Amino acid sequence: MDLIARLRAGLPGEAILTDPDVTGSYANDMASFCEAGTPAVVVLPRTVEQVQHIMRTATELRVPVVPQGARTGLSGAANASDGCIVLSLVKMDRIIEINPVDRIAVVEPGVINAVLSRAVNAHGLYYPPDPSSWEQCSIGGNIGTASGGLCCVKYGVTAEYVLGLDIVLADGRLLTTGRRTAKGVAGYDLTRLFVGSEGSLGIVVRAVLALKPEPPEQLALAAEFPSTAAACEAVCEIMARGHAPSLLELMDRTSVRAVNDMAQMGLPDTTEALLLAAFDTPEPAADLAAVGELCTAAGATQVVPAETAAESDLLLQARRLTLTALERVKSATMIDDVCVPRSRLAEMLDGTAAIAEKYGLTIGVCAHAGDGNTHPTVCFDAADPDESRRARESFDDIMALGLHLGGTITGEHGVGVLKKEWLARELGPVGLELQRGIKQVFDPLGILNPGKLF
Amino acid sequence: MDLIARLRAGLPGEAILTDPDVTGSYANDMASFCEAGTPAVVVLPRTVEQVQHIMRTATELRVPVVPQGARTGLSGAANASDGCIVLSLVKMDRIIEINPVDRIAVVEPGVINAVLSRAVNAHGLYYPPDPSSWEQCSIGGNIGTASGGLCCVKYGVTAEYVLGLDIVLADGRLLTTGRRTAKGVAGYDLTRLFVGSEGSLGIVVRAVLALKPEPPEQLALAAEFPSTAAACEAVCEIMARGHAPSLLELMDRTSVRAVNDMAQMGLPDTTEALLLAAFDTPEPAADLAAVGELCTAAGATQVVPAETAAESDLLLQARRLTLTALERVKSATMIDDVCVPRSRLAEMLDGTAAIAEKYGLTIGVCAHAGDGNTHPTVCFDAADPDESRRARESFDDIMALGLHLGGTITGEHGVGVLKKEWLARELGPVGLELQRGIKQVFDPLGILNPGKLF
Repeated sequence: MDLIARLRAGLPGEAILTDPDVTGSYANDMASFCEAGTPAVVVLPRTVEQVQHIMRTATELRVPVVPQGARTGLSGAANASDGCIVLSLVKMDRIIEINPVDRIAVVEPGVINAVLSRAVNAHGLYYPPDPSSWEQCSIGGNIGTASGGLCCVKYGVTAEYVLGLDIVLADGRLLTTGRRTAKGVAGYDLTRLFVGSEGSLGIVVRAVLALKPEPPEQLALAAEFPSTAAACEAVCEIMARGHAPSLLELMDRTSVRAVNDMAQMGLPDTTEALLLAAFDTPEPAADLAAVGELCTAAGATQVVPAETAAESDLLLQARRLTLTALERVKSATMIDDVCVPRSRLAEMLDGTAAIAEKYGLTIGVCAHAGDGNTHPTVCFDAADPDESRRARESFDDIMALGLHLGGTITGEHGVGVLKKEWLARELGPVGLELQRGIKQVFDPLGILNPGKLF
Repeated sequence: MDLIARLRAGLPGEAILTDPDVTGSYANDMASFCEAGTPAVVVLPRTVEQVQHIMRTATELRVPVVPQGARTGLSGAANASDGCIVLSLVKMDRIIEINPVDRIAVVEPGVINAVLSRAVNAHGLYYPPDPSSWEQCSIGGNIGTASGGLCCVKYGVTAEYVLGLDIVLADGRLLTTGRRTAKGVAGYDLTRLFVGSEGSLGIVVRAVLALKPEPPEQLALAAEFPSTAAACEAVCEIMARGHAPSLLELMDRTSVRAVNDMAQMGLPDTTEALLLAAFDTPEPAADLAAVGELCTAAGATQVVPAETAAESDLLLQARRLTLTALERVKSATMIDDVCVPRSRLAEMLDGTAAIAEKYGLTIGVCAHAGDGNTHPTVCFDAADPDESRRARESFDDIMALGLHLGGTITGEHGVGVLKKEWLARELGPVGLELQRGIKQVFDPLGILNPGKLF
């Protein structure tokens, strides 16, 4: 086959996978309800030059290229198209530099988030972005999907930590964007354009990342509320009073019960909403006390501050297990990612409960409450066509509600295949036209991750 | 004249200025060595619809449009072209909303930075970006030039506070980008593309800005050093040890003397470098003590911590007066804005001193040292052609040195007319081609601020 022969001219044999049983396992990320095609070949380059060779070949032969990290994404952005080259960056996994004076790390895209986090910790530094999949997901994937996590309420999202990029363009040319410096405003911000572009503009082969000093270990509290509205009232008060929690998470009754059923953690099974707050400040106990009072004032029936890091970890583990626990409720789940202004969070949660009732579905909600970022998770039986249909429809209702409340269809999971039609609705025709214009500038042949985003 | 008549069809009479004596005063921002043309007309719209009318007219008649804020910029980005419409946004100066729960402000572009800062302070909130011109400059100008300031070492630049924009495009259509939410990854980040685009992609008519809780009042110290290298060593140690100063500024001997000459502030006239550090933490005195020790270890001959906010203000006033003081040294100044990795700051300062010596010039340097962002300010006699030529050449040497040290030609002042050739050098041909492609998407007729950036 001409494609494979051409690829072989610039890649070692072990970097090219063609056995359909093997390549088939690269067809999907972790999203539900997203179609995936059959790749022609999977390539695993180890150098920038090899990536350039792959892209030159793809351009010459007009073959679509689907870039992949660890395939932990939740929107189908890494799903294969029929006949495509799957370009997996997992073998480019070197940490090239960690510089405590400049507070930067220089990495290849395949580095696992947790590996980088631990490596910079050893230098007294901190790489904040912490998606739930941080032990599996790669920095390149984090950049492609603009990942968030639990830390965002204090530390922001991946985008805020990407200073500069090396990118192999669709035609194989190398582009360097951004900088190693703390500041810089030379020309349009192409770096930021690539963050969240889901591999549709070029292949990230190296990144300069900003680091923070490692904060003190965080201390958490849990507060039980008799309604999600009361918990959201507490969230608004905490933020309006100027607190800077390192984490502010909400679990609804369905989520709490699912975690209890799975892990017997002894969470308060009768509660309607559990709020978790943490501080990594010099005096976290004082901050927790102040936040505990606000929770009580908002109607919390019980407030339990952790006194040790170990107790905190236990509380937070409940939150980290939520999605896994919800996956056990029925045979399938569909996780949403609507972000609303935090002042509208209560309406979002009440509205989601109403949608669950309307469709007769179980929808568990956990939320990065401090950011207004909710993850309604529809639990359904995939073997039941009617329930599957209702699940899909409820998902659309949830996105419509998010937009109605002044929010966005995706806080941190991205668009991929899953939310293409909704992206068009959120952007409107003018925005969509300009986004397509930008895509055309970088990828005039349309070979980079076609069918994603729009 | 057809242009004026067309403009009158959608603008009140007082919004159109045509008297050449008046319009001539809108020809320039505050940059040196930048040519400016003669505008055909100055328009001062008060509504989005008026801006749309102006842009539709400009598109129909193919007339260039130069957007302007308060014209405090330092790169000529707001300079008029011959026959252009100067579109001044200063009359669109409403603060539309301040929301403490969502921690956002919604503003029109003409709002003065200091006016917004004070307005949000009244709600216990903080809008960090604080360019030296903050009492005069407008938020729209800050967005257009991606302004920085003294706060950046802890709080980052303007770009990090712009969540969403309303933009009137070249053809008069309205584009809404971004969001009101804390997070959001729906499509390419067009918001960020506009920040620092110097009016070359569209007209910002409304902005959603992120706010922070108001921090405690900062407390500062001053440390005298026997060399800039020793002061830079202290800067590196402070940052490597994980400190988070709210300000970390350096003044070289020339700057210190200029301030003393102007304001008789009693600064140590014999010092080679003065370092100013401040903390807005809960216990600033403890942080200052730790930083003071690092300064002493790096060779500081004297360390003076302020004990009150009033003492801090006095120390910081010296820094705020530096540019004004340097402007009194000779008849003209030319201020540069090179940013290097902070680990290279000492080399940047030593190299700048060598350049001053080579050209026989007085170059005072103040620096946002914590960011590696230096402002070498060439003081020269504009009436002396040879000295003017040497000033211009030294300026080029300084930018070349910045790039050589892994830095950028502009940390926060932008490109405008002043650094066009240098932008091309920093970006390289591939980057430049893509930037031009983006410009073409938004402004196919090339009527928006032509001749700026590239």
